[in-house]
Amino acid sequence: MEAWELPVCLNLYLSKLNLVKGLDNLNEHQIIKEYFSDVGSAYLAEHGIRVSVGDDAAVLSPPKGKESVISVDTSIEGVHFLKAMNASDIAYRSVSVALSDLAACGATPSWFTLALSLEDYDPIWLSGFRRGLEDISSELKIPLIGGDTTKGNLSITVQVGGYVEKGKALTRKGAKVGDLIYLTGTIGEASSALESIKKDNLVDLKKSRYLRPKIRFGVSNKLKGIASSAIDVSDGLFQDLNHICTASKVGANVYLEKIPTFLSKSLSSEEMNKGDDYEILFTSDKTNKEKIEGISKQEKIPICEIGLIIKGYEVQIITPEGDFLKASSGFQHF
Amino acid sequence: MEAWELPVCLNLYLSKLNLVKGLDNLNEHQIIKEYFSDVGSAYLAEHGIRVSVGDDAAVLSPPKGKESVISVDTSIEGVHFLKAMNASDIAYRSVSVALSDLAACGATPSWFTLALSLEDYDPIWLSGFRRGLEDISSELKIPLIGGDTTKGNLSITVQVGGYVEKGKALTRKGAKVGDLIYLTGTIGEASSALESIKKDNLVDLKKSRYLRPKIRFGVSNKLKGIASSAIDVSDGLFQDLNHICTASKVGANVYLEKIPTFLSKSLSSEEMNKGDDYEILFTSDKTNKEKIEGISKQEKIPICEIGLIIKGYEVQIITPEGDFLKASSGFQHF
Repeated sequence: MEAWELPVCLNLYLSKLNLVKGLDNLNEHQIIKEYFSDVGSAYLAEHGIRVSVGDDAAVLSPPKGKESVISVDTSIEGVHFLKAMNASDIAYRSVSVALSDLAACGATPSWFTLALSLEDYDPIWLSGFRRGLEDISSELKIPLIGGDTTKGNLSITVQVGGYVEKGKALTRKGAKVGDLIYLTGTIGEASSALESIKKDNLVDLKKSRYLRPKIRFGVSNKLKGIASSAIDVSDGLFQDLNHICTASKVGANVYLEKIPTFLSKSLSSEEMNKGDDYEILFTSDKTNKEKIEGISKQEKIPICEIGLIIKGYEVQIITPEGDFLKASSGFQHF
Repeated sequence: MEAWELPVCLNLYLSKLNLVKGLDNLNEHQIIKEYFSDVGSAYLAEHGIRVSVGDDAAVLSPPKGKESVISVDTSIEGVHFLKAMNASDIAYRSVSVALSDLAACGATPSWFTLALSLEDYDPIWLSGFRRGLEDISSELKIPLIGGDTTKGNLSITVQVGGYVEKGKALTRKGAKVGDLIYLTGTIGEASSALESIKKDNLVDLKKSRYLRPKIRFGVSNKLKGIASSAIDVSDGLFQDLNHICTASKVGANVYLEKIPTFLSKSLSSEEMNKGDDYEILFTSDKTNKEKIEGISKQEKIPICEIGLIIKGYEVQIITPEGDFLKASSGFQHF
C-alpha cells in the first residue's frame, strides 16, 4: 500500500485487460477519499496510531508491556459470502470474521487494514461497503488504518491487529488431560441463517449471526489466565476442537447432548460441524468452574461445559446412547 | 487466519462451486505443511515472534522504543505480474513490492503474512512459489508468520511489518520549499524488463529488477533524520513525487536531463513515469548534501539530485530546452 494505495499498476497494463463497465470512470484518489478515508479515525489516537491512510505505511506505537497479535483472513464471493448479500453486510462480516482470531487469543482489537479487489466501480455498492466498515469500526472502536485496492474478482482480505498482556495470549497448545471443554453461546444459528439467505429471506435476517457475526471479545478477554487453550469456531466445532487436540497432543470426549444449539434445535453431528458460529471453544482446569460461571453471568453469554480432555489424539463424539462417533468422519469434505 | 488457515468454508459451500481440476485432491493441512510452514522460522526469535504459523494469530513483542510500521499490497495476475513468470519470481516479487513501502518509511522489515487465493492445487507451482518465499525470507532474514488460503482467481496479498525508532518514520509530509529532490538508483529497468518478458525472454532476466525488485533498505535506513519526506517509486516517478507534493502542500521542479536512467538510455517523460522501479524518492535540506553523498558511497547505490521543492502544488517537469511539462498529463491513464 501506501497506508492506502489504489490500482497503480493498472495504468501500466491496462491494455492487457478487458475494460469492465464503469472502471474507465475509476479515479483512485476519489475512491480512497469517498469510501475508505476516516473510517474510525476518531479512534486513531487511543490506539497509538500516528500515521494512517494516505502515506506509504501505517505507523503505530504498541502499548507498554503488551504483545502484538495479528491475523489475516480472506473472504471470497461464493465461498465466504453470497452475492445476494448487501455490501454493508459483506464488509461487516469480512472484518468480523478476521477479528474472531484475535478473540480466540484473548487479544483486544486495535486496528484493521483492507485489501480489496473489485471487478468494477460501483458507487452504490461501495457506499454500502463503507457503511459496513463504519458499523464494525464504531462498534469495536477500531480504525481502518490502510489498505490496497486492485482490479480483479471481488475478494476482501482483512488484516487485524490487537494487543494482549505479555505472555497471556491464549493459544491452541495448552490443553491438559482432565481439563473440561467449554463453548460460548450456541451452535447452528449461522448455518441456519445461511440456509434462509439462500431462500432470499434476507430482510428478516439483517442482523443475524451469519451476516453480522458478533465476536466474543468480552468473554475471551476474561479467559486469560483461566483457559488453558482456546480457538474460535470457524471451521466447525469438531474440526476446531481437533485443532486444539493436535496442537496440545491430547484427545477429547465430547457429549452430543451437552452441545448447546440455537433455539434448542436437535442437530446431527454433521450439522453441528458446519462452522461459521464464531463462538469461543476453550479448555480449562476443573478448579476454574465457578470463575467461568461468573464470567458467563457478567457477560450475559451462556458458557456450556461440553466435554473432557483425555489422553490420546482423537476427538470422540459420544451420543446420548453411549455410541462413539469419530469426528474425523464429519469434516473431510474433499 | 489461524496463524495459518486454509479454505475452511470451502467445505460448506463446495456444492456451489465448480470443482477445478486438482482441487478435489486438496488437503489444507498438507498444503500448509508442505508449502508454507517453516519459511524463515530461523528468524522468529530475533524478531520477538512467539506464536506463528499453526495458531489462531501470530503473537509478537515489538522491540523497546520502536514504533511498528505495517503495510499491505495485493498482486494480481495480469495486473501486477504475468502468467508466464515462474511461480518463484511471482512469490518473490509479491513480497518484495509490499516490503518497498516499509523502506519508504525508513523501517527495518520484521515479518510478513500471506493471503493466497488459488484456482487449483498445483504442487509444482506451489513448490516454486515456496522457493520464492524462501529466497526473499532468507535475503532479508524475515519469517512468514501466518496467512490464509482460499479458492479463487490467483491473487496474492502480502502484509508486512517492521519497526522504526519512535518518531523517526519517514513520511510523505515533511518536504519544505528549498529542499532538494533525490532519487536512488535508476529509472526504466523494470519497464524495460517487462517488455522483454512479454517477448518471452524470461531466462536472461531471471534476476531482473522487474522479476525480483531489490528494495533499498540499506539507504532508507540511513535517511532517517536526513530526508524530510520519502516515498517508493511504484506508481511512476512523477506520480509519486506528486504524492509527496500533495501531502507536503508544496510544488516541485524536476529537471528531465538530471533523471538517471537505466543504461543511460534516453527516455521520454512518459517512459520515466512507468513505475515499478521501487527506488526511493526523497527530499532533503540543502545542508545534507555531503551526508547524502556519504550514504551513496557506503551503500554503493547512486543517489542523484533531480530537482527542487518550490512553492505551489504541482510537479513541473523541465526539459533540457527549458520547456515546462505538467506531470499531471503523464499519469492519468483512465
